[in-house]
Amino acid sequence: MSKDTPSQRASDWLARFEHALSATDMTAAQMLFMPDCYWRDLVAFTWNIKTQEGRDAIAHMLAWQVPNVKPSNFRLRGEATEADGIVDAWFDFETAVARGLGHVRLRASERGADQAWTLLTTMVELKGFEERKGDNRAKGAEHGVHPGRNTWLERRREEEAALGHTEQPYTLIIGGGQGGIMLAARLRRLGVPTIVIERNERPGDSWRKRYKSLCLHDPVWYDHLPYLPFPDDWPVFSPKDKIADWLEAYTKVMEINYWGSTVAKKAEFDESRGEWAVTVERSGKEIVLRPKQLVFALGVSGYPNVPQIPGAGSFLGEQHHSSRHPGPEGYRGKKAVVLGSNNSAHDICAALWENGADVTMVQRSSTHIATSDSLMELALSGLYSEQAVKNGIDHHKADLIFASVPYRIMHTFHIPVYEQMKKRDADLYGRLEKAGFLLDFGDDGSGLFMKYLRRGSGYYIDVGASELVANGSVRLKSGVNIERINPKSVTLSDGTELEADLLVYATGYGSMNQFLADLVSPEVADRVGKVWGLGSATTKDPGPWEGELRNMWKPTRQPQLWIHGGNLHQSRHYSQFLSLQLKARYEGLPTPVYGQAEVHHRH
Amino acid sequence: MSKDTPSQRASDWLARFEHALSATDMTAAQMLFMPDCYWRDLVAFTWNIKTQEGRDAIAHMLAWQVPNVKPSNFRLRGEATEADGIVDAWFDFETAVARGLGHVRLRASERGADQAWTLLTTMVELKGFEERKGDNRAKGAEHGVHPGRNTWLERRREEEAALGHTEQPYTLIIGGGQGGIMLAARLRRLGVPTIVIERNERPGDSWRKRYKSLCLHDPVWYDHLPYLPFPDDWPVFSPKDKIADWLEAYTKVMEINYWGSTVAKKAEFDESRGEWAVTVERSGKEIVLRPKQLVFALGVSGYPNVPQIPGAGSFLGEQHHSSRHPGPEGYRGKKAVVLGSNNSAHDICAALWENGADVTMVQRSSTHIATSDSLMELALSGLYSEQAVKNGIDHHKADLIFASVPYRIMHTFHIPVYEQMKKRDADLYGRLEKAGFLLDFGDDGSGLFMKYLRRGSGYYIDVGASELVANGSVRLKSGVNIERINPKSVTLSDGTELEADLLVYATGYGSMNQFLADLVSPEVADRVGKVWGLGSATTKDPGPWEGELRNMWKPTRQPQLWIHGGNLHQSRHYSQFLSLQLKARYEGLPTPVYGQAEVHHRH
Repeated sequence: MSKDTPSQRASDWLARFEHALSATDMTAAQMLFMPDCYWRDLVAFTWNIKTQEGRDAIAHMLAWQVPNVKPSNFRLRGEATEADGIVDAWFDFETAVARGLGHVRLRASERGADQAWTLLTTMVELKGFEERKGDNRAKGAEHGVHPGRNTWLERRREEEAALGHTEQPYTLIIGGGQGGIMLAARLRRLGVPTIVIERNERPGDSWRKRYKSLCLHDPVWYDHLPYLPFPDDWPVFSPKDKIADWLEAYTKVMEINYWGSTVAKKAEFDESRGEWAVTVERSGKEIVLRPKQLVFALGVSGYPNVPQIPGAGSFLGEQHHSSRHPGPEGYRGKKAVVLGSNNSAHDICAALWENGADVTMVQRSSTHIATSDSLMELALSGLYSEQAVKNGIDHHKADLIFASVPYRIMHTFHIPVYEQMKKRDADLYGRLEKAGFLLDFGDDGSGLFMKYLRRGSGYYIDVGASELVANGSVRLKSGVNIERINPKSVTLSDGTELEADLLVYATGYGSMNQFLADLVSPEVADRVGKVWGLGSATTKDPGPWEGELRNMWKPTRQPQLWIHGGNLHQSRHYSQFLSLQLKARYEGLPTPVYGQAEVHHRH
Repeated sequence: MSKDTPSQRASDWLARFEHALSATDMTAAQMLFMPDCYWRDLVAFTWNIKTQEGRDAIAHMLAWQVPNVKPSNFRLRGEATEADGIVDAWFDFETAVARGLGHVRLRASERGADQAWTLLTTMVELKGFEERKGDNRAKGAEHGVHPGRNTWLERRREEEAALGHTEQPYTLIIGGGQGGIMLAARLRRLGVPTIVIERNERPGDSWRKRYKSLCLHDPVWYDHLPYLPFPDDWPVFSPKDKIADWLEAYTKVMEINYWGSTVAKKAEFDESRGEWAVTVERSGKEIVLRPKQLVFALGVSGYPNVPQIPGAGSFLGEQHHSSRHPGPEGYRGKKAVVLGSNNSAHDICAALWENGADVTMVQRSSTHIATSDSLMELALSGLYSEQAVKNGIDHHKADLIFASVPYRIMHTFHIPVYEQMKKRDADLYGRLEKAGFLLDFGDDGSGLFMKYLRRGSGYYIDVGASELVANGSVRLKSGVNIERINPKSVTLSDGTELEADLLVYATGYGSMNQFLADLVSPEVADRVGKVWGLGSATTKDPGPWEGELRNMWKPTRQPQLWIHGGNLHQSRHYSQFLSLQLKARYEGLPTPVYGQAEVHHRH
């Protein structure tokens, strides 16, 4: 074994790596990786979000990209560390057009030479197009005398009056939820003229309008927006109206051009002009916007899924999708049937029960349950917790560590966590099963986050409702569906009839592609293909393996069309890479995309 | 000389100091200080803001306070440093009721023993009444089931509906500018029920309504609000409307109970109930609030000063105080006379000239000019700059270093800075004097900040207007006053007649006491006495020496009445100490005030 320090080993590896790249010696470069190796690149080398798996894939990418990318100046950042035979190191590097930050995990080979197991390369900023911050921030006051000068407010108002009318935005973001807002904040910093349009009136309304007991299920350390972290007394789980107010304040102070009460009606790509024509209705008035780049930030799901159940029209009670559920107040003493068993179903059942309704959950298929406390302690605390922050892992660093684990092997990191969780919460799981609840931990036991990545559904983060199901307070019918709806009841597939005054469809959302099909065209939706999922060939995530989330934050097969979204963590982290891709195009830099994925699943 | 490291020396001194205090051996304690020594205490030892000057004063304070304060557990924080024979050290300590942070400058005496030259002790938090942050933050979601639970939004609405109506605030803050907002944010964190009332409709309006070219004259590093630092692209000098939007967003996300469009009409202290009765008019409706504590946060100045000049009523043009100046747009081609030569006068003259008015400044007496760049580089950069942040001095640390310099000797730190400035800007100063401008650097040459502390006026931070005065673009009449106003002109005391379409009184503001006299009573205004000023016996700062800013952020002679304000830096830093004083009283802790100042200058 080497007697060098971890930092020496990492520096040596980086030097050899840089040498191989600058000599365009792909064989040498390849041999710096273990046979079982992964190189995940976020835009820096590939102008794509792409994981190269194995030496051949790495060599192929390098052969294509190195001549243009011209990587150089690899320097260790901080000290490398070693644990369990793996050296962990951070490094800075440059390309012809950008500065980057990377992470590598090294192992000594049998011959004693250090080889990379995982490599992460990320683009941080474009040279000459850096954000104006710190030393380079704007001065604000223009000292000296400037006859006819405009104030900040006048310039803001002029911009607001011109953009979308006499001047066109370079980027149009459809959807002004957290994802759209974060991307717009980054584009604002980068000086890319952008408009965000949002159906609701005010930023945050997409949270405000949801059921009243809703709180974020992810803890505060995971949820920071770019540039403006929450203050240190922010609650662990943000109540929905509080995060809504934060989003509204953020939109204002970040000077985002945000068009509330605006709906996109139609989008067409004008091939000859290389731009979009997007018809929007703003407060009742039609306007055609002509952005070069169109970003869908409508969440990764599509329209609410409302199953067509015979007899629905005859129902005399109230029925609505979970997204339209007004909260529990009106249903004291009423009989409620909630169809579904994921997050919204559980939250709504619990709130209805707390407010004195008689509630039955209808569980159609198995669900993964992870208690919030266990998730925090077992799955998240190493990266996103007060303790992590004290250990020097703030969310910036945590995001990169998270990104450094290739999707191909991510489940192997998660399975042991959920094995622990099964033991820790054995009592609850046992009682849930006894109550008839159909439990699962994912096809391979890898739990919640893998389910989220693969299919975006199939779980409940337990903040209390599971106890109600386990102890029978919320009645449960599992392994059944609603077969027909009667005026005052529903009939289940096992023949049971449940009286019902309220019927909530907590049945999730359709595919994002539906928005594309409706707003642009079915052809474009087909061209782009399936959104989200890794291609793991597990339930609801059909193969082939893609190795990244399909179509997210990277070029799609429809030129100048992008998809942005995900949870707060993803929206924060990946908006960095999407914003850099857009900025590069705005500035006319060459952006040759390497290894764009094939489309296997049409609209 | 000692061979010990600075940290060893500081630790030794702290150990000896703690020993002397715990033995209540005041003679020993006294001898740990140089003959020429200062102990500045911010609430921790004195429940006051108070500088003890010299050994006797220190011994006297200790004799009175140590038995109650019970100081203990003094520990060096970080490493001490040494430069120019002075050891600089930070330390933590405790008292019976609080945790504190201190700073000491030590010198070796002739005999080689280390003695304190300056000592700063500050209260950080009250034991058992800490802010809920970090590990102790609220959870937000109450996991588990809680029938009838209220959401965050419902609780906020209930609070807003109750406070001031069915429940009384413990603290009422009159004035919702930056000072009131920052204090309210701290009290919110400490759980002290508080209402802020503000004449204007929205937070930030007191900035929005000022002349449109206004930007903060202090740089961003100096201006952070508590808990939520500006993002790193915030402009160096905030435009007024941008800082206004920030204050509004801050008020919202900090959940401050902010009553806009509300005017205080009358305040009476009810001795028998030990509370105030404050009549306010909120959106036209009278309400009587009954707070225990009343805070004036109306700025440290009073009403606009408008001189009574014969003939003012006959003027056919427009005349107004600088605080009512609408901006320069309407005055193209008009003849403007601006009376005054401080910040507002210069800003208004420059903006009028830029917009094509013919402008004359009437300078009555000498003014200090410091260019913004020189101030930043020579006076502020060590503590408040991007470089300082890189050196590990963020605004938290900078505030404490700033506070560690006793007012008695502060001018000696400043005089050399302004000597440098005279050289650096000799060209500008020479041309200004040639143009007839009456320049000064304060009575003792200590420049801008000392003028601010002593009298709160008498200077202009040059962001460009001085050049206009120097080159004659803005005409200047100096050493004169306006003796009479005619229908279309003004007559100066030297007999000159100036044609005038516009007359701006940039003549500053009266005394804060006027608000007290009007709102409470002349007797209470007299009891409280002069606000602001150190008692330096320099121009407009009559003695006797007080050693702290009079009546600011500390108990006044009127029980349960407090005065808060100052620039953004002071409002940020001293709101910490005022909020802790209020919290202690709210919780019923004993707060024996040591060394309350005599009142020498009545209303």
